[in-house]
Amino acid sequence: MNKGRVTIPTDENYVEGTKEIAKLWGADAVRDCDGTKLPKNALEIAEKVYNTYFVVRGDNAWADKHTDELQSVLLMTGYCLATEETLTIDLLKGYSRDQLGVNEENPNKYWQVFDRTTGEEIFTWEYVGAGHVRIENAKPYHEYTVNFFAKNLWDSTQMYNYITNNWNIEKHKVMDTRFSATFEHIKDNMRKWCDENKNVNVVRYTTFLYHFFLVFNEINKEKHVDWFGYPMTASPKAFDAFEKEYGYMLKTEDIVAQGTYQNNFVNPTETFRDYMEFTEKYVTKTVRELVDIIHAEGKEAMMFLGDSWIGTEPYGDYFKDMQLDAVVGSVGGGVTVRMLSEIPHVKYHEGRFLPYFFPDTFFEGNEDNAVAELNRNWVTARRAMMRKPLERMGFGGYLSLAAKFPKFIERAGQVCDEFRSICDASDGGKPYSGLTVAVLNAWGKKRSWMCHMVAHELWYQQVYSYQGVYEALSGLGVAVRFISFDDIKQKGIDKDIDVILNVGDAGTAFSGGEYWNDEQIVTAVRKWVAAGHGFIGVGEPTAYQKGCKFFQLSDVLGVDKEKGFTLSEDKYNIERKAHFITADVQGEIDFGEGMKNVYALNKAQVLDISVSNRFVRKVNVGEVNLAVNEYGNGRGVYIAGLPYSPQNARILLRAMLWSAHKETELTKAYSSNVHTDCSYYPESKRYAVINNADYAVKTTFYDIDGNAKDLSLKAGEIVWL
Amino acid sequence: MNKGRVTIPTDENYVEGTKEIAKLWGADAVRDCDGTKLPKNALEIAEKVYNTYFVVRGDNAWADKHTDELQSVLLMTGYCLATEETLTIDLLKGYSRDQLGVNEENPNKYWQVFDRTTGEEIFTWEYVGAGHVRIENAKPYHEYTVNFFAKNLWDSTQMYNYITNNWNIEKHKVMDTRFSATFEHIKDNMRKWCDENKNVNVVRYTTFLYHFFLVFNEINKEKHVDWFGYPMTASPKAFDAFEKEYGYMLKTEDIVAQGTYQNNFVNPTETFRDYMEFTEKYVTKTVRELVDIIHAEGKEAMMFLGDSWIGTEPYGDYFKDMQLDAVVGSVGGGVTVRMLSEIPHVKYHEGRFLPYFFPDTFFEGNEDNAVAELNRNWVTARRAMMRKPLERMGFGGYLSLAAKFPKFIERAGQVCDEFRSICDASDGGKPYSGLTVAVLNAWGKKRSWMCHMVAHELWYQQVYSYQGVYEALSGLGVAVRFISFDDIKQKGIDKDIDVILNVGDAGTAFSGGEYWNDEQIVTAVRKWVAAGHGFIGVGEPTAYQKGCKFFQLSDVLGVDKEKGFTLSEDKYNIERKAHFITADVQGEIDFGEGMKNVYALNKAQVLDISVSNRFVRKVNVGEVNLAVNEYGNGRGVYIAGLPYSPQNARILLRAMLWSAHKETELTKAYSSNVHTDCSYYPESKRYAVINNADYAVKTTFYDIDGNAKDLSLKAGEIVWL
Repeated sequence: MNKGRVTIPTDENYVEGTKEIAKLWGADAVRDCDGTKLPKNALEIAEKVYNTYFVVRGDNAWADKHTDELQSVLLMTGYCLATEETLTIDLLKGYSRDQLGVNEENPNKYWQVFDRTTGEEIFTWEYVGAGHVRIENAKPYHEYTVNFFAKNLWDSTQMYNYITNNWNIEKHKVMDTRFSATFEHIKDNMRKWCDENKNVNVVRYTTFLYHFFLVFNEINKEKHVDWFGYPMTASPKAFDAFEKEYGYMLKTEDIVAQGTYQNNFVNPTETFRDYMEFTEKYVTKTVRELVDIIHAEGKEAMMFLGDSWIGTEPYGDYFKDMQLDAVVGSVGGGVTVRMLSEIPHVKYHEGRFLPYFFPDTFFEGNEDNAVAELNRNWVTARRAMMRKPLERMGFGGYLSLAAKFPKFIERAGQVCDEFRSICDASDGGKPYSGLTVAVLNAWGKKRSWMCHMVAHELWYQQVYSYQGVYEALSGLGVAVRFISFDDIKQKGIDKDIDVILNVGDAGTAFSGGEYWNDEQIVTAVRKWVAAGHGFIGVGEPTAYQKGCKFFQLSDVLGVDKEKGFTLSEDKYNIERKAHFITADVQGEIDFGEGMKNVYALNKAQVLDISVSNRFVRKVNVGEVNLAVNEYGNGRGVYIAGLPYSPQNARILLRAMLWSAHKETELTKAYSSNVHTDCSYYPESKRYAVINNADYAVKTTFYDIDGNAKDLSLKAGEIVWL
Repeated sequence: MNKGRVTIPTDENYVEGTKEIAKLWGADAVRDCDGTKLPKNALEIAEKVYNTYFVVRGDNAWADKHTDELQSVLLMTGYCLATEETLTIDLLKGYSRDQLGVNEENPNKYWQVFDRTTGEEIFTWEYVGAGHVRIENAKPYHEYTVNFFAKNLWDSTQMYNYITNNWNIEKHKVMDTRFSATFEHIKDNMRKWCDENKNVNVVRYTTFLYHFFLVFNEINKEKHVDWFGYPMTASPKAFDAFEKEYGYMLKTEDIVAQGTYQNNFVNPTETFRDYMEFTEKYVTKTVRELVDIIHAEGKEAMMFLGDSWIGTEPYGDYFKDMQLDAVVGSVGGGVTVRMLSEIPHVKYHEGRFLPYFFPDTFFEGNEDNAVAELNRNWVTARRAMMRKPLERMGFGGYLSLAAKFPKFIERAGQVCDEFRSICDASDGGKPYSGLTVAVLNAWGKKRSWMCHMVAHELWYQQVYSYQGVYEALSGLGVAVRFISFDDIKQKGIDKDIDVILNVGDAGTAFSGGEYWNDEQIVTAVRKWVAAGHGFIGVGEPTAYQKGCKFFQLSDVLGVDKEKGFTLSEDKYNIERKAHFITADVQGEIDFGEGMKNVYALNKAQVLDISVSNRFVRKVNVGEVNLAVNEYGNGRGVYIAGLPYSPQNARILLRAMLWSAHKETELTKAYSSNVHTDCSYYPESKRYAVINNADYAVKTTFYDIDGNAKDLSLKAGEIVWL
């Protein structure tokens, strides 16, 4: 029981220390990290030995000899203003010339030039060499852009580390497996590496072929970062292969998409979906050849969910073809736990927990902070673990640094024990869910738990009010699924779904944009709600401007957003009322960024409305933050924004139950204090109550039959019942 | 000098008191008001005697005998959800049945039914009588609306007064002059009235034919109020006449416009412009017949700018055809002064100042408040008076009530004197303007000083941050003009314009919406700015989503708004810098509602950015409130919002001067204290410095050559130099 499921970093200079801590923490695996090297006889320390492996970078000897076989990046120049009829555009202006060079292969075939003022493609241009395009017959005071291929001269992650840490190392060029000589060489490398690393039984791929979209600007600061972006998969060779496979020629604009690069927030077009599928098929087929090599050597293949993960799409249809054994990823909170732990078709999932054992945290006198960060990270992740656990956990960095903090070592050992206890409790059985919730957006299952992420794990002012919804869901006692608008069009709404959530800003892939102009979707959802189900909108749900309606399901939600076209309509529904949903609320509700200009229709009930102090003597002011609405036999709920907090998670739970007419489910396998969560494992008939607060709390626990019992929990405690 | 230009209310029971106050205030005109009657020998009291006159209401004897000749209102039902294939819609549901009845004339010809879920008109419906339409073959869970004609059974203003004041009077039906019998009768009434009112020499029309759009709901509360709305001009007869005149059949949807009723905030369509012109031609031609009658009697025609003013469009092409002598309107602030005082083609303009002499203000013990309201109203209006004065002022209500407050009588007398002194000072000569500013929107000249108004004079949370721009302009030492996008398309930008302002929310007629997708407009403005002019955007200027740009002139403004599609782009320009524009700022700038998610492009300079306290430890946060940008030889300025305040007026002045490279104009005919304004009248070579504060201030006055002189001004004082 007190052994296994834990991976620790090691170093050839810290073998004895590793053994000691491995024993204290029950670690059964060791790994190398940036700046460390595995001991030669690592398998004597642990059952599992992980070694990081780069597939397409780190072999400059080859890359420099095959400069035509480097990866490309599809880029758009900035908007360039013509002031006369000739305009010359410096393609790499604004881009890092350390990272990128122009790929001069057949510009006329692949590149595109657009007049962005009219939106039209133009053809009166020429590549004049030295990285410049000249446009003739330009229209003065129109803006032009060029879509072009650049060469990827420096791996994005390495460049990031280099810049961030002031490293002075060889800059890794990035090889393209689409060139058969390069791919054969890469396979040879893999085989050679296997021969040289008999002491490793898990290959920790960091990662495979294509980096997420990360390019730097002219002063080597980050310019564009999209953890989901495909521009680094695109190349002339890929475009040719696409044409052969799909029967039509892809255009650069299909990916560039006016500079949005079809990012995660943009509704995917048909063509872009084709391109993603094309890339997924290629990546998984190619990676499979490497995996087969290491499987033949008896090694496991583990994928790091990050860096060059593009084209793997763990929730897509082709991921399984790689036959990976495991995935590992960093854990920032509940959402990242679920994003990892629910990936199908692998034997186990591992989370790398914080803090990273680096000198920025592990310096003298900072032990308490290190322990606090560990606790914070663990408690946040644990909520999600209770619903769908990872099978393994781990740490990264220099173990020798952590070893200097005995309190940290002790606390981490407890966390490892608790981790194992949760895995064991839920082993083979799902926790009880009284409610099934579907998040509805343009991506659906394919981007499960990946909604509203920009740069991986980074906080953005524009998204935290929506991310809180997923963070809340990751630990609530409900079954969660991600569905797309196309799912609804193709097969309707699954019978077992109780509540649909639609979350996000107008026009984005997460709220759905134009999908809400599709009568089939609008009608299907309305009918389904009226039949007795729940619909919850957060932010600008169902938003699509059509006449005097902005929220196309304003009839269901009971609210709409004033965009300036219906100011002449009087709005009287501004009185705040008490409700089941807000029964636990203490103080003001935090709606994060909230939402401007939302008003309630007459038939709705307002639960919260903002009125600024400056408007004390004004009438008809205020912005509705929370409202409920009866719709046929169903119910709608509107929430302006929901950053994660214990109170907001409870509001969401209550809103979901209320909307589905399942209010009585609340007190089944439930813990009353908002800082606690309760999970019930029917197979083992065990209950877990966790305290997410870093102080002691009292709560009332309700079993599955609603029998109550008072409990006291210590800071961060987990209690099994 | 101390006589004239002032109108006071009188009453047949208060003749001697009227004479006394007329003398004190130098009033040369008397008027009747709601609830008062003119004395029989009013011309002995004053040179001018105004009497209110209703053209189409107040004659129920006729109206009841000619129920087919009542006015109509074009309405849309609410959105009605079909749950099965038959849907019956109660047309007047949600409307006041006291005010409105169904006009059953030929529904099949005029009415329209829409499936608002698909946006398509449907034809499988029938008027089944008793105010109901039945739709067959409805699609379940689609929403339907009916556009239909109602009859106008109760004049909107009378109804409003009735409800507000709990009056118990006969409800005025509204007659339609399009019926020739009714129109002949109305003309007879006018002639008869002239015969009976020899003691009146000014007919104060309240107003002419068509009320602005004001309808009430099922409990007689205001439902829809649009001071600019045309639905009350529409009728089957008007539609037939339109077809004859314009050669095509108008559809109800051309006016209903999905329920927006083509209000002031909606870009006017070609058809709607035709309909407005058609109505203007009809109204002005019809009113002219009445004006001719009273002119023949030696009486003046004065139009009250309110109530039934629709179709007069004082800034339109047909207004002059009525040959009115005067307009009068209520004065709420500087904008309403300018809206009145700049109306062309009348001999004089009169403003009705506040407070209204009603018991709600003039009750015992409230004298100081009454004086304060007078001062506030006067000082606010005076700023605009200095730039373009009204020729007359007046008050309304019961004079006998005001007479009980001696301090009020005294102060009002001073105001009247000051009013006359301003008129005299500027008589025949324009004040000096060092800068010419054009407000650019979809309406242009036609809605001069009428931008961002909803219900006339009412404060709305969604507009005050924009109205402040016009209020500031109304009193600044610049020449102001209103231009439209069509002006730019047809004739370019006038040579004398220094600065263009584009103000408002995305998609509205005031920012321009789709006009910013017109390359001709975009190009013309860019070129003009680059040639050395200024462009100032407030709120969501030039907004139109196209690819990764939301502000189509983001290149000029130096900022754009993040709508969720370019979160992957790093934004680094967040440092606040000092600038000429903010040189006078004390404390925080008030941007009103501000604007979410505006960020600065790299080349811009940020002058103000909001960062919430909650984001203390976050990076890349904040919303740009004020930024400037060099563009060719020109300059752009972005302001998130600008409610009126002395400080904000100064910011706007400085922004305009800076953007036009005319910073040195600032200290020409200038007063340094933000609570003061300075105007210079070149013809008389006089300067006026006004103190808008209700306390004494010190300021430095600069003459037209920049010579400085320190001044001390008392609360509200005006100093002539």
